[in-house]
Amino acid sequence: MNVHKIAVIAGDGIGPEVINEGVKVLKEVAAIAGDFSFQFTYFPWGCEYYLEHGKMLPDDGLEQLMKFDAVYLGAVGYPGVPDHISLRELLLKIRKGFDQYVNVRPVKLLQGAPCPLKDVTRDQIDMVVIRENSEGEYSGAGDWLFKGKPEEVVLQTGVFSRKGTERIIRYAYELARKTGRTLTSISKANALNYSMVFWDQVFEEIGQEYPEVETNSYLVDAASMYFVKQPERFQIVVTSNLFGDIITDLGAAIAGGMGLAAGANLNPERIYPSMFEPIHGSAPDIAHQGIANPLAAIWSASQILDFFGHEVWGAKVLDVIEQAMVDKKMLTPDMGGAASTEEVGDEVVKILSALQ
Amino acid sequence: MNVHKIAVIAGDGIGPEVINEGVKVLKEVAAIAGDFSFQFTYFPWGCEYYLEHGKMLPDDGLEQLMKFDAVYLGAVGYPGVPDHISLRELLLKIRKGFDQYVNVRPVKLLQGAPCPLKDVTRDQIDMVVIRENSEGEYSGAGDWLFKGKPEEVVLQTGVFSRKGTERIIRYAYELARKTGRTLTSISKANALNYSMVFWDQVFEEIGQEYPEVETNSYLVDAASMYFVKQPERFQIVVTSNLFGDIITDLGAAIAGGMGLAAGANLNPERIYPSMFEPIHGSAPDIAHQGIANPLAAIWSASQILDFFGHEVWGAKVLDVIEQAMVDKKMLTPDMGGAASTEEVGDEVVKILSALQ
Ligand SMILES: CC(C)[C@H](C(=O)O)[C@@H](O)C(=O)O
Ligand SMILES: CC(C)[C@H](C(=O)O)[C@@H](O)C(=O)O
Repeated sequence: MNVHKIAVIAGDGIGPEVINEGVKVLKEVAAIAGDFSFQFTYFPWGCEYYLEHGKMLPDDGLEQLMKFDAVYLGAVGYPGVPDHISLRELLLKIRKGFDQYVNVRPVKLLQGAPCPLKDVTRDQIDMVVIRENSEGEYSGAGDWLFKGKPEEVVLQTGVFSRKGTERIIRYAYELARKTGRTLTSISKANALNYSMVFWDQVFEEIGQEYPEVETNSYLVDAASMYFVKQPERFQIVVTSNLFGDIITDLGAAIAGGMGLAAGANLNPERIYPSMFEPIHGSAPDIAHQGIANPLAAIWSASQILDFFGHEVWGAKVLDVIEQAMVDKKMLTPDMGGAASTEEVGDEVVKILSALQ
Repeated sequence: MNVHKIAVIAGDGIGPEVINEGVKVLKEVAAIAGDFSFQFTYFPWGCEYYLEHGKMLPDDGLEQLMKFDAVYLGAVGYPGVPDHISLRELLLKIRKGFDQYVNVRPVKLLQGAPCPLKDVTRDQIDMVVIRENSEGEYSGAGDWLFKGKPEEVVLQTGVFSRKGTERIIRYAYELARKTGRTLTSISKANALNYSMVFWDQVFEEIGQEYPEVETNSYLVDAASMYFVKQPERFQIVVTSNLFGDIITDLGAAIAGGMGLAAGANLNPERIYPSMFEPIHGSAPDIAHQGIANPLAAIWSASQILDFFGHEVWGAKVLDVIEQAMVDKKMLTPDMGGAASTEEVGDEVVKILSALQ
């Protein structure tokens, strides 16, 4: 029997609540499928841990995680711990430390999901954003000079390597070729005269190897506009770390809200564990009320299934999410409903078990 | 008589077509008002000039412009001239060379303007974005190492000075205080660990001087989402050069489209001329067809009126734009209508002249 070992970092705020439901769903799927199973190990890392130990995770944290096939992360961040500590020292540390250089974020309007756009039908919002996840604007390089003096100046350097840029763009081309979809690059060469000129160049170079892939290239400002006005322009999208961050939140906004947005942080070579997470924050304001939307965490669970080769089950979980929203009106308050976190998770499990 | 000397750089693509209508409107306003006038001088700079002379404008271009009170710019960019040349060497050169460090972009849903958002009413989209316009991510600093080698690495450095950061944030606080509106800062300290930590710090520091201004601070990714989901959260917004670029295109998308979005590039000390422009591009695909929307250029004209102290007339032009859209259904194709560029401009002039 194929056992998938999952490290669960439920994290802060609503993290544990939504992860609970995702774990339930994975267990149910494994029980029905019968030929694989999950083994979950919980790590109490996050802001509470930080307040106690002065660090977000133990010094050998990454080493501990190395023994697992994947990490399932809830959400990180809590008032009292500055964001640039909580996020950089946990979420970003894992992404970088495990060379999870591909961030896969589906932007797909499911049946039953609320869309804030007029005159847009479901088939117009169906893309996959491939975000560079290991370097670029997030490299953390910079300097802070003449602190407190009138001539104070702060530098933040984006670092775009040939290797890092090629591999993410190549990943996106492969996906576009495999799925027969168009590939759109989002950049900003007219203002960022080094990094984005390089990005565009590599996008063109690699494109030579994929003559059958139809491509487009948009400036990030224009792309933001088209996400709202003509989202059907986009199928597979590839972009830098920062632009991917912005554009996928915007994507979440048009495709049902943050309560539905999932992201996979992949190390495609499987040398390190990959990490799966709802992309929403820890939402401390609604924590412990049982009203957080677990569907993003459940969608991430379906990405876990895909990643381990159980794509048929991954797709089923997405279908079931749609059924829960459409037939059962299982919508949490963020989507205009009144269902609780647990009710939504239980309903998904119930529909799944009825599939048997 | 107060004569305002305006340098017109109509530019490329639809630039000349839309600027024509803006100039008509300014002339009409001056004729009616009677106590001031405009003197327009045209400069044929842009991509055509580049193809002929190998540069976007003459070497003493900025010197020539120094004799004017303001620059009125159409749009720049044309196929055959790389964007990072056409924009950096003209638009960005003027912004920087004339220390136009404040970019004022209204995001306001006018009556009659098409809004792509469901369930959003006009009063929910009414903000002014103050974008830093002279440094930050657009500093142009960087390096390109080991070109063509496997270890190739490209660096792009954002430069945030104490002076540059303070002055834009102070400008925004002043505006918020003067107008009694809330001030929202958009940044990204959880990922950009130097520049945006500094930005947030300065935003807080300057805030000490404005205890009466109510403030918020959003991450740029969350802000993008809220622009679509709850735009009423924003009144006065202050943000960096790059984030301002992205967020104002998104703002344009929710407030009627790029055909309606205006921007003022201000040197508030009036040591250098300020520059006014529709923020849309040169749209070569629809150039010379007479169907470009001139309302963004006309809105910029109203910003020119404001800037020269004719705020009453500036406001009137905005009213008249609304009347043209609502009463006269003067909408160009981008807004779902069938009016031509000239028809819209003529109608605005006609309504204005009827005000007499
Ligand atoms: C929390 C933050 C550091 C993170 C990011 O910017 O990548 C988040 O917004 C995301 O998109 O996963
Ligand atoms: C053309 C481009 C360089 C410019 C910018 O990025 O500032 C434009 O998008 C704008 O917003 O005025």
